[in-house]
Amino acid sequence: MAYDDQNIFARILRGELPAIKVYEDDQVLAFMDIMPQAEGHTLVIPKNPAVTLLDLAPEAAAYTIQIVQKVAQAMETALGVKGIVLMQLSGTVAGQTVPHVHFHLIPTNVHELGKHAATMGDQEKIKAQAELIKAALAAA
Amino acid sequence: MAYDDQNIFARILRGELPAIKVYEDDQVLAFMDIMPQAEGHTLVIPKNPAVTLLDLAPEAAAYTIQIVQKVAQAMETALGVKGIVLMQLSGTVAGQTVPHVHFHLIPTNVHELGKHAATMGDQEKIKAQAELIKAALAAA
Repeated sequence: MAYDDQNIFARILRGELPAIKVYEDDQVLAFMDIMPQAEGHTLVIPKNPAVTLLDLAPEAAAYTIQIVQKVAQAMETALGVKGIVLMQLSGTVAGQTVPHVHFHLIPTNVHELGKHAATMGDQEKIKAQAELIKAALAAA
Repeated sequence: MAYDDQNIFARILRGELPAIKVYEDDQVLAFMDIMPQAEGHTLVIPKNPAVTLLDLAPEAAAYTIQIVQKVAQAMETALGVKGIVLMQLSGTVAGQTVPHVHFHLIPTNVHELGKHAATMGDQEKIKAQAELIKAALAAA
């Protein structure tokens, strides 16, 4: 699928839209989902412009999943949670809403997932969670 | 978490239990979920003995996600589907049922996911789907 460089994650990556970031390097960005399906819901995206996981360069997928591991560990440490749902939707048919590949990390039970991208969260609470996750990543 | 080498995926990896395999190499096995949440539901597991994604060696995670990409692409080709839900549950709290890290690839919409590990599928139909996915992988 052709990549639309005006999608909101592309705009976040270019700094045109704000994001509550927890981790960034030259290849990957991790930031809070502002419509969380559970408290602490974090997104990890490669900077590589790809719509779905199927389109993503294999080496970018390999690097991104390693950052997913680190962020997930930091979430458990920072938020005191014990279980994490990793979800990654490829294709609008699957329910993908932003056409830039992204991994959801959601500290919840799979049977209690809130509806995907449904309601805005408490932004101040989300910022506080982000600070905890950032601190755990820095200490790792 | 300590790894229980009697879990069913460990037993499948040792050949003690059967599985409908679609891909295998020295590091990874992909096979059909016999309790599918949608038709074509496939699992990809590293051979590395790890309970959750957080425990998995980073290089094993990197390799496994690349096989996840290949299997997902083969599923789309073989089954004529357009969207894939990737789900990976870390921890019993998250809903993980088998204590060996596994990636679910489910050709469905996230809002229509059947209940996780709930009902047995039609095994003959699952075998036929596996043959199609294997053929697509071989042709890729």
